[in-house]
Amino acid sequence: MKRLTILGSTGSIGTQTLDIVRQNPGKFEVYALAAGRNAEEVERQARQFKPRVIGLMDDKAARELKQRVADLDVEVVQGMEGLLRSVTDEAPDTIVTAISGRIGLEPTLAALQAGKDIALANKETLVAGGELVMETAKKLKRRILPVDSEHSAIFQCLEEDERTLEKIILTASGGPFRGWSAEKLKEVTPEVALKHPNWAMGAKITIDSATMMNKGLEVIEAHHLFNMTYEQIEVLIHPQSAIHSMVQYCDGSVLAQLGRPDMHLPIQYALSYPTRWSNPFERLDLRGKTLTFFDPDEYDFPALKLAYACGRRGGTLPAVMNAANEVAVHAFLARRIPYLEIIRLVERVCTEHDVLDATDLETILSADHWARMRTEEFIG
Amino acid sequence: MKRLTILGSTGSIGTQTLDIVRQNPGKFEVYALAAGRNAEEVERQARQFKPRVIGLMDDKAARELKQRVADLDVEVVQGMEGLLRSVTDEAPDTIVTAISGRIGLEPTLAALQAGKDIALANKETLVAGGELVMETAKKLKRRILPVDSEHSAIFQCLEEDERTLEKIILTASGGPFRGWSAEKLKEVTPEVALKHPNWAMGAKITIDSATMMNKGLEVIEAHHLFNMTYEQIEVLIHPQSAIHSMVQYCDGSVLAQLGRPDMHLPIQYALSYPTRWSNPFERLDLRGKTLTFFDPDEYDFPALKLAYACGRRGGTLPAVMNAANEVAVHAFLARRIPYLEIIRLVERVCTEHDVLDATDLETILSADHWARMRTEEFIG
Repeated sequence: MKRLTILGSTGSIGTQTLDIVRQNPGKFEVYALAAGRNAEEVERQARQFKPRVIGLMDDKAARELKQRVADLDVEVVQGMEGLLRSVTDEAPDTIVTAISGRIGLEPTLAALQAGKDIALANKETLVAGGELVMETAKKLKRRILPVDSEHSAIFQCLEEDERTLEKIILTASGGPFRGWSAEKLKEVTPEVALKHPNWAMGAKITIDSATMMNKGLEVIEAHHLFNMTYEQIEVLIHPQSAIHSMVQYCDGSVLAQLGRPDMHLPIQYALSYPTRWSNPFERLDLRGKTLTFFDPDEYDFPALKLAYACGRRGGTLPAVMNAANEVAVHAFLARRIPYLEIIRLVERVCTEHDVLDATDLETILSADHWARMRTEEFIG
Repeated sequence: MKRLTILGSTGSIGTQTLDIVRQNPGKFEVYALAAGRNAEEVERQARQFKPRVIGLMDDKAARELKQRVADLDVEVVQGMEGLLRSVTDEAPDTIVTAISGRIGLEPTLAALQAGKDIALANKETLVAGGELVMETAKKLKRRILPVDSEHSAIFQCLEEDERTLEKIILTASGGPFRGWSAEKLKEVTPEVALKHPNWAMGAKITIDSATMMNKGLEVIEAHHLFNMTYEQIEVLIHPQSAIHSMVQYCDGSVLAQLGRPDMHLPIQYALSYPTRWSNPFERLDLRGKTLTFFDPDEYDFPALKLAYACGRRGGTLPAVMNAANEVAVHAFLARRIPYLEIIRLVERVCTEHDVLDATDLETILSADHWARMRTEEFIG
């Protein structure tokens, strides 16, 4: 029986994690559910999954939630303090970090320090604080199991002997705008950008997929998760998203993981690992299918180049890139800036940043804070 | 240091195995080399690899070989007795069975009984005597490591917990004649059939690949090697031979092994397992590539249907099918029968056979013998 805390329980990964809990009776106990501000949904989840703790980041929403569940035997917590409480309590053994953005960094670190395993669906955490998080996990012998479909694919293809790993090949659909001219991209609205061709996901990651910043974040995530240099991480455009990623071994053999584009599978694997559980998910059927592959250099993906550059430079620069991107994406979704301005803004903020070593939480958070302020200033 | 006996050292797999030995100095000692009748080539190999024993099946050729290597400190053996000697001696620990045809069955069994591991490149052995061979290996805790690219792919994709395996997906190029009309197939000559689009292989397996009997034999081989029912083994036409095979787990996840169509890789993996060795082989490059997949039922592959039927029926029937096929293929190569007659002959012989349990070597060999005689009678 795994005792879960789910951070971001009302989001795309959060609700799919609860699907897995529902489909596997007897395998889980939900200890805590936390989200941003959706009191109504957390109430519904609390009534169904009977957690001992529920929380919301937003104070007002948390107060509303408290009233909604007054009849339930459940503790309501609020803000970052409440989030930290829900992951460091003795009861849960696995924390599913399904919140979006750098805000996942503190609870992830706190959870590791409290001896918990992490099912990681929050790539921004590793982008901003990869060294610190991985070192903490290593020191305390805790597992960080990837939920991202690409990283789950790589994880599934890994063999015991890590030294034989030669290269990681991250596949990328290329997003809905692969090959579009700058002229056309200028006009992209949030409505258009929110329609991903293959995956149904949250708003932030869908925009990141359109700009390819998502793949850039994944490159940095892979660097930390699998201890690979940036030279060992390759991106391959694969519009059909059937191969979720690949690894190449020192003898030239390539292992790949394939599946339908359904996040339930990597979520379940992160929770069932090291075994697998039967499920009735629709199976991949390749009959009649055509899979294609392209070099990303055939297209103009400035976000991907930027992420490689920031990752290589290291220190606080990836945290800055990520923070600027978070602000810029939300500004785009709020129609404050045009689509093409997203990555241009991020580039500008990165260029201005004086890089420091990112070995402690304070330095990372302060760089993150600076980048957010600076991006807001640029947006004006 | 692995001490090898290579059966079929002058064939396609045998010479590539010796390439691997050459490329990995200090990792191997060649104990014995055996082949059919090519004294000149075995002499060359003996001078280079300095085995302690060399052998030829053909008596006359063996006598010639003896004269050729009179100046070397090497023992020359001959016939099946010599073959058995070279695999059961104390010295070798791994036997590479790279001979073609059912003739591999007796030395494989003898080697297992003598406590050797097998690098199996001889699928006919498992088709004819799969139950007996696998039981012997299991009882004596010996390994049978697949060299066939498809089975190596599956083996590389296997996880520790066998119970989570749901299905095996054997890929098949479909051969050079996929989609050809009967009218066109009638005219196929050995020269045309010997040109495989993707793989450079020996004559027998190349014809088997053209008729798709090779895939049929592989289905039966997979049934035995991986303990899968025939319902769990699927064939998928994949003309580009980039994905060498796949496995599907009970959670719907599919793992695949990919590589260039070069047998050096699976041969090396069978010898390096459980680790991998670096090598300078050209890497697979998917950029710009298109991979396609088809249901074999879209085409008329009578050999594949026959192999499934014979495999399901079991007992001595697969041995009979294999024996008839060996005779028919050689008759085609000798221009004694037309191309389309190969599988028709095999079907005819299979239909006539009274199936027995295949639990002992004598029964299998006697069924094999009967089938060869009967096929020859049909050829007339």
